Amino acid sequence: MSIYQTRRKKIYDWMSREGTDLLMISDSEEHRNPLIRWLSGQPGDALLFLSAARSSILVPWDINMATLYAEVDALSPYAEFGRQPIKALKGVIERLKIPKGAKIEIPGTTSYPKFSNFVKEITDFDIICRDGGVWTELGKSRAVKDEDEIGIYRKISDITNDIIDLLEGQIRAGKLKTEAETALFIEFEGRGQSCEGTGFETLAAGPDRSFGIHAFPAYTGGAFGGTGLSILDFGLKYAGYTSDVTMTFARSPLSVVQEEMLSLTEKAYNLALGMVKPGIPARDIAIAVDNFFAESGKTMPHSLGHGIGLQAHEAPLLSSRADNEWILEKNMIITIEPGLYDPVHGGCRLENDILVTETGAEVLTNSRIIRL
Amino acid sequence: MSIYQTRRKKIYDWMSREGTDLLMISDSEEHRNPLIRWLSGQPGDALLFLSAARSSILVPWDINMATLYAEVDALSPYAEFGRQPIKALKGVIERLKIPKGAKIEIPGTTSYPKFSNFVKEITDFDIICRDGGVWTELGKSRAVKDEDEIGIYRKISDITNDIIDLLEGQIRAGKLKTEAETALFIEFEGRGQSCEGTGFETLAAGPDRSFGIHAFPAYTGGAFGGTGLSILDFGLKYAGYTSDVTMTFARSPLSVVQEEMLSLTEKAYNLALGMVKPGIPARDIAIAVDNFFAESGKTMPHSLGHGIGLQAHEAPLLSSRADNEWILEKNMIITIEPGLYDPVHGGCRLENDILVTETGAEVLTNSRIIRL
Repeated sequence: MSIYQTRRKKIYDWMSREGTDLLMISDSEEHRNPLIRWLSGQPGDALLFLSAARSSILVPWDINMATLYAEVDALSPYAEFGRQPIKALKGVIERLKIPKGAKIEIPGTTSYPKFSNFVKEITDFDIICRDGGVWTELGKSRAVKDEDEIGIYRKISDITNDIIDLLEGQIRAGKLKTEAETALFIEFEGRGQSCEGTGFETLAAGPDRSFGIHAFPAYTGGAFGGTGLSILDFGLKYAGYTSDVTMTFARSPLSVVQEEMLSLTEKAYNLALGMVKPGIPARDIAIAVDNFFAESGKTMPHSLGHGIGLQAHEAPLLSSRADNEWILEKNMIITIEPGLYDPVHGGCRLENDILVTETGAEVLTNSRIIRL
Repeated sequence: MSIYQTRRKKIYDWMSREGTDLLMISDSEEHRNPLIRWLSGQPGDALLFLSAARSSILVPWDINMATLYAEVDALSPYAEFGRQPIKALKGVIERLKIPKGAKIEIPGTTSYPKFSNFVKEITDFDIICRDGGVWTELGKSRAVKDEDEIGIYRKISDITNDIIDLLEGQIRAGKLKTEAETALFIEFEGRGQSCEGTGFETLAAGPDRSFGIHAFPAYTGGAFGGTGLSILDFGLKYAGYTSDVTMTFARSPLSVVQEEMLSLTEKAYNLALGMVKPGIPARDIAIAVDNFFAESGKTMPHSLGHGIGLQAHEAPLLSSRADNEWILEKNMIITIEPGLYDPVHGGCRLENDILVTETGAEVLTNSRIIRL
């Protein structure tokens, strides 16, 4: 059984329990959804239909790409349906002989006007559009990585660590002087090592701009790695999955405030790392870090971390928000990324990717604060 | 009156005519919407509220960025509303003293489950969620560029043309040998010339991969510019707006089929360009090109072109689809991008950015097929 069949089996089982007859999943320019790739291998731009009779039909925009990548029971080009989701659904209902009155679940992200059109045009069926349900189930499934995914993460982490070391060397040697040089060095090295690219736009913020959590623009022709604090937040994308690490380059002379920020950030990181294990509420770790910073009168203006996978931000969330109910489980892969930001002294952040193990944490990436 | 006030005035006028009391526009990681930037100057991640009483309130995720960029009547940090759109809407209703029974329009992209929550939680108001209406009005407004935007496009085109010439020189000199080197050369030069980056992921496809309309991955460590046909599709983003051009590098010896593809593509491009003028249905131009290719037994597997602006793909559409009702108007900025693709011989595409003038077309960019 292929990894995609194994993943689809879980969804089929869930559909049987819930009495769902047909499930439609969509990835488009308007709404990206990595479930298509996770369940079929097709990188994107497609509809995927799963039936209670355990049949999978992919309706791709690019049929040539699907022939190369997709592992499904059947392919049907989107062009045949005029690239219209309602026409595609009608076609699949006919092809799979879905009986009238059947429960058909469409994406919970479907807009209200589009949902109304589905209901108007597909009569005699029970069209369901909701949050939760199968979407929560799928989110939970994706949060816990399977052996195939953990293998991919070992490979991505190797590439990421290699590039982290190269970056340290290049910056120590004075070879990367601007944000753009630094960001594009990562992009170039990553593509050379068979990465699909970066998992999100690299954030390279020199000392003048590192006070922002997410600098805008993400990187410029401006100076990087000079006196003070520079932040570099990047991820490499391999086989669809992304790493996510943040390095801080701290060039002396540093102010007392800057030294304190670096030291607190490293301590917060170690505090959080020491708490990672299966069974702990993710919120507890985030609260511990918030409290630790508060003791020194500091506030972290963002969450402590998040799951990574086919998207740079996915479940579980490591945040102190009251509605965060995630519990860490074995084989989740998360980031821990404490940071502090000051409009005058700049910012620092330290972020690594962590595999939750049977007994604790395995740090996959080797990002660090580099003192120059 | 600032350019943002001028643009908002049109929307206020439309709201008065339609009897809409409050309009909510949203840009988030989940749903990107450049209207926020177009109407306020804020680059993104915010809610914008426009009231019939001609008041604008921006609710940004990053209040520091909004202080730098946004030109609105009032700012209210999203954090104050727990980053929840329904809470934010409630707060704005209170602040602007919107009377009960008022018509409040929320984004037409709002999902059905989220729309249900709005209706459930915001009682005593008429919550409207639809396609068309104000969204069509806004789309039409954005399709015709104002003087400010045309000025930005002259600047972007200068940068783009400069980089086109640099690329030709670098590739003729054998200095860019791989897809990644070529794509990152553009990114680096663009950022150095004050661009925010590229407007979309650069597609660099060497002779082995140019048969695909959109190569996947977009660029790799593989060879570029060798014998045969290489496609380079890129855009530079400046002040939020993007150019969009495609160059083809054709290195001899070329096959007869390749020579014919290049020649037909250039002829199709000139045919289309000659038809551009205010008042012509965009569909007519696309049909003329489809017919021209059909005479030689060729088929173009994508649309002829599209509007550009704050997004790489926006109105009007230059497609031969029956439902394409766009008519070209003065000051629209569009792409014309005929292309042909062959699994054996590779692909070629020629794309430039065109300003529709009083009497015809002004070609803004200087992309071309380069024979090596």
